[in-house]
Amino acid sequence: METGQLEELGQQLRVDAVRAADAAGSGHPTSSMSAADLGGVLLAHHLRYDFERPGHPGNDRLVLSKGHASPLLYALYRAAGVIDEAELLTFRQDGSPLEGHPTPRLPWVDVATGSLGQGLPVGVGMALAGKRLDRLPYRVWVLCGDSEMAEGSVWEGAAQAAYERLDNLTLIVDVNRLGQRGPTREGWDLDTYARKLGAFGWHTIEVDGHDITAIDTAFQEAAATTDRPTAVIARTHKGRGVAEVEDQEGFHGKPLPHPERAVEELGGTRSVRIDVAKPSGTPTTTAPARTGGAATTPVSAPRYRAGDEVATRDAFGAALAALGSERDDVVALDGEVGDSTRADAFGKAHPDRYFEMYIAEQQLIATAVGMRARGYLPFATTFAAFLTRAHDFIRMAAVSGTGIQLCGSHAGVSIGQDGPSQMGLEDLAMMRAVHGSTVLYPCDANQTARLVHHMAGLPGIGYLRTSRGASPVLYGPDEDFPVGGSRVLRSGDADQVTVIGAGVTVHEALRAADLLAAEGIAVRVIDLYSVKPVDGGTLRQAADATGCLMTVEDHHPEGGIGDAVAEAFADGRPAPRLIRLAVRNMPASATPAEQLHHSGIDAASIAAGVRSLV
Amino acid sequence: METGQLEELGQQLRVDAVRAADAAGSGHPTSSMSAADLGGVLLAHHLRYDFERPGHPGNDRLVLSKGHASPLLYALYRAAGVIDEAELLTFRQDGSPLEGHPTPRLPWVDVATGSLGQGLPVGVGMALAGKRLDRLPYRVWVLCGDSEMAEGSVWEGAAQAAYERLDNLTLIVDVNRLGQRGPTREGWDLDTYARKLGAFGWHTIEVDGHDITAIDTAFQEAAATTDRPTAVIARTHKGRGVAEVEDQEGFHGKPLPHPERAVEELGGTRSVRIDVAKPSGTPTTTAPARTGGAATTPVSAPRYRAGDEVATRDAFGAALAALGSERDDVVALDGEVGDSTRADAFGKAHPDRYFEMYIAEQQLIATAVGMRARGYLPFATTFAAFLTRAHDFIRMAAVSGTGIQLCGSHAGVSIGQDGPSQMGLEDLAMMRAVHGSTVLYPCDANQTARLVHHMAGLPGIGYLRTSRGASPVLYGPDEDFPVGGSRVLRSGDADQVTVIGAGVTVHEALRAADLLAAEGIAVRVIDLYSVKPVDGGTLRQAADATGCLMTVEDHHPEGGIGDAVAEAFADGRPAPRLIRLAVRNMPASATPAEQLHHSGIDAASIAAGVRSLV
Repeated sequence: METGQLEELGQQLRVDAVRAADAAGSGHPTSSMSAADLGGVLLAHHLRYDFERPGHPGNDRLVLSKGHASPLLYALYRAAGVIDEAELLTFRQDGSPLEGHPTPRLPWVDVATGSLGQGLPVGVGMALAGKRLDRLPYRVWVLCGDSEMAEGSVWEGAAQAAYERLDNLTLIVDVNRLGQRGPTREGWDLDTYARKLGAFGWHTIEVDGHDITAIDTAFQEAAATTDRPTAVIARTHKGRGVAEVEDQEGFHGKPLPHPERAVEELGGTRSVRIDVAKPSGTPTTTAPARTGGAATTPVSAPRYRAGDEVATRDAFGAALAALGSERDDVVALDGEVGDSTRADAFGKAHPDRYFEMYIAEQQLIATAVGMRARGYLPFATTFAAFLTRAHDFIRMAAVSGTGIQLCGSHAGVSIGQDGPSQMGLEDLAMMRAVHGSTVLYPCDANQTARLVHHMAGLPGIGYLRTSRGASPVLYGPDEDFPVGGSRVLRSGDADQVTVIGAGVTVHEALRAADLLAAEGIAVRVIDLYSVKPVDGGTLRQAADATGCLMTVEDHHPEGGIGDAVAEAFADGRPAPRLIRLAVRNMPASATPAEQLHHSGIDAASIAAGVRSLV
Repeated sequence: METGQLEELGQQLRVDAVRAADAAGSGHPTSSMSAADLGGVLLAHHLRYDFERPGHPGNDRLVLSKGHASPLLYALYRAAGVIDEAELLTFRQDGSPLEGHPTPRLPWVDVATGSLGQGLPVGVGMALAGKRLDRLPYRVWVLCGDSEMAEGSVWEGAAQAAYERLDNLTLIVDVNRLGQRGPTREGWDLDTYARKLGAFGWHTIEVDGHDITAIDTAFQEAAATTDRPTAVIARTHKGRGVAEVEDQEGFHGKPLPHPERAVEELGGTRSVRIDVAKPSGTPTTTAPARTGGAATTPVSAPRYRAGDEVATRDAFGAALAALGSERDDVVALDGEVGDSTRADAFGKAHPDRYFEMYIAEQQLIATAVGMRARGYLPFATTFAAFLTRAHDFIRMAAVSGTGIQLCGSHAGVSIGQDGPSQMGLEDLAMMRAVHGSTVLYPCDANQTARLVHHMAGLPGIGYLRTSRGASPVLYGPDEDFPVGGSRVLRSGDADQVTVIGAGVTVHEALRAADLLAAEGIAVRVIDLYSVKPVDGGTLRQAADATGCLMTVEDHHPEGGIGDAVAEAFADGRPAPRLIRLAVRNMPASATPAEQLHHSGIDAASIAAGVRSLV
């Protein structure tokens, strides 16, 4: 396409952004206008994408990290001929897939954006899949804003991309100098961005982001650069092309004040149509070809004998390694604690599908999201406490509707001496509140193995909470533990109270039941291994039989097992008496047994609680 | 002190780290040994600290970001003469303040560490207080590990420190090349660390971290460097001084295999005592002198008239500005959305106490923690959704036992068209589960103003959830809303159901009550503005009177108001019938009214729910 036509295309994209925001009465036209020339040249000359076949494994990926510039993205789709003018003008309306920030409700959007600083880390995950799993020549293009370069997650991604030599990744930085509330820290100082990215190992190119030829050349250079990722750092004007708003403060995130005049100033509406280049190779709408996924060392599903002492984290590692032998789409990601989470068992068996993300939990989750978008089944693992570092990425993964599997080890005070910084005491609250999540918390090695197997089939985000210390095996290796189930471990007609635990507190509950039985007090004990969804039926039965339920959890009192059980009775029907034991103190260093006692969740505390109830 | 003595000191610190971990049976001696010479030289020659007066405003601050190297810190305290040998050997034992990772249970520890990558961002907050609030010449020294340089938060802090020209800040990077599970990404490539930090605007010095003279010179150079922060990047050996473990993999986080032999190899126990230099100036144990804190523009407490339409975010901004006029210790921190959260009202009134953190939410919270440690009362503000980005920092602030105040705006689906990436739908779950937190959610402008006032007196972490859209003023400007309270807005003897809302759903509940009253169904309506602690007494009264409670919340069903109400009845007494309306869908773009309806939390949905119950 000629330069003049590309300039026309840029103006069309601006006009369409202005019109979409005007129709919606909200949105970010000025942030779209700064990047219009970058987007137009990319679409016309560089992106290889079969819009009729979004599942084509050879398609390039385009991630709009500055998701608020969605009008530009939708204008690009119109230019590509996959949405028409009428649909463009449904922007932000109820029922339209053209949301305020892009989501995969549109088939050409891989991941939801809108929380800034996430596009590059997720793009790194996709590019890593391209390089080391798919081994296909697609490129990943990430368009981000300059404000979001302040997010630490961008630098986690930048470091990982350079370390992995992702020359299939291009970051386009739209340096329009203006953030939401005023100038950015760096303004138009392109050199500073280039110096930073260069120091992180990137090839960098500085361009005038409104010079079509310069952009074109830069993208060519990016594609031709080997052995490292490239950043195209583009100086642009926010609101480019409309004098009233161009490079002016106070016009972020709102329609243009005079849209009709603006469209006129931009040269009116146009219908330039781009015939986007398709990738080579055989199209398919199914999962990508996997050439890096063969099981390298067959691992059998682990089996544990009743009475053995095994930590659930050990059982997790062994089960994940076995799952990797069964399915070649399983990948595992470590946050530099694989020897603690035991994810390294997978790494030893399947080194080609094991990825070290170092101590960068946002990148850990982002890589999972990116690889999932390429059709893999990622398990991301770190300490339960440190998953909080990636909360926003997990939240956004739910907005994407994606299914990634997480394991948090070292949960609760029962880790012992390391103290509260290492204890996951908020993770159940965090993971329960994630839309569409499944939250599992095993107490036994065979149960852990079975739950890992079930996680592979979950539609949404799954979370497995594991414990540091060994505990006795309670179940046989052939027993099943369906998601949404529970296990009644002690039960009798004379039960006066039901004690509900999960993980370490199941074992404390059983000990308490023994203590109480010796005193003639019968209690029912339920292993609530599925915290979400919760087994309402069994809980209701126990309530009907015993009248009183006591939850016991190695977690703060809010958002965990106590709340999950209460939710099961929030159905308008009469509710049982409920009481909860949980970690109400701020722990310090102590042995696991001392910790459980100080927090009032050990067998003695449970027994005392039951005595006070009966 | 002579070089030879400093070498002796380094060996003493190593011996003490080895002994402490041996006594504990756990801990990180090898990570302590790599940094022993750095720590010793710092203590002996550079740190200005009055150990008898930790509250002295002129004291330097030492933040051990690599908190797992706590044995080194405690060994330094022994060398400074503030703990003795017997106390050193209580390391990690129940009841000892010498925890596995340092916490402010020790008077010389300002903030808890142990979640990596947090020391520098928090140190930036302290140094910023020193420069722009205290205006005192203390220095902030942050000792971090090399593995944690992978955390994005380090680069958020690095950028902010350079932007603010914090020449009172020194980062010491202990590059021992070995992380937990093996080599770091960069190994001993000091140049790469220096290049990155240099590109971020730092002065950098590379040294042999076991060369006493070189370290000494580097610290002198750091202190003499003006106009920018300095990083001393030190090449060290993990486990230095004990051949069996020095620079070897497999010895992270465990006592030395042969501690007695190791102590012998290190030259045996010693009792070198350092007379640490004190800061100049008059000592005080109270809050620091504040020279930057005078109210610049007096702002009166806002008052709103019943019936006016005011957004709670607007009321928050006005109330915060007024609080800043009442108290000169209040500071406000913005995450580049101050025009949306309305924190910019404070910025306009008190520009000297308003700090722009750009789009870096981890740094936003870390600055609050650092400034709080210097005696200020920080309010950190961004969208409720984006506070999830800083979850781990909030969690660690609770471990520190610190009191910072947070405000999250744009909560819930009621923001409308922007879509789910911008909606806080998990924030109540996150904030309720924070140890010692207070969670407030006003529905009205006068209530907001009063709650902001109360937040200034909270001992722990406070959270205020505000809404984007305007809503009618319900309360008078002189009414009080104590923390832990609630308001019964509709009440009568014939009430059949109690509807409990907070924020936007209070208004929907009132509308539903009107609809139902017209049908002859009387409902009680409670405004549960204090979500934690929750007003159990009023809820129990309502339960006794109406038998059935319905919660309605603009939040996912887990961890929010429904759970908070359920918790109030988890006291073993008979519980009422409960039902909860909450956001169970994944929203898309739509108007606020459409959103409330689609999520089933508008007046019509509430009325329908009540009808099905009665």
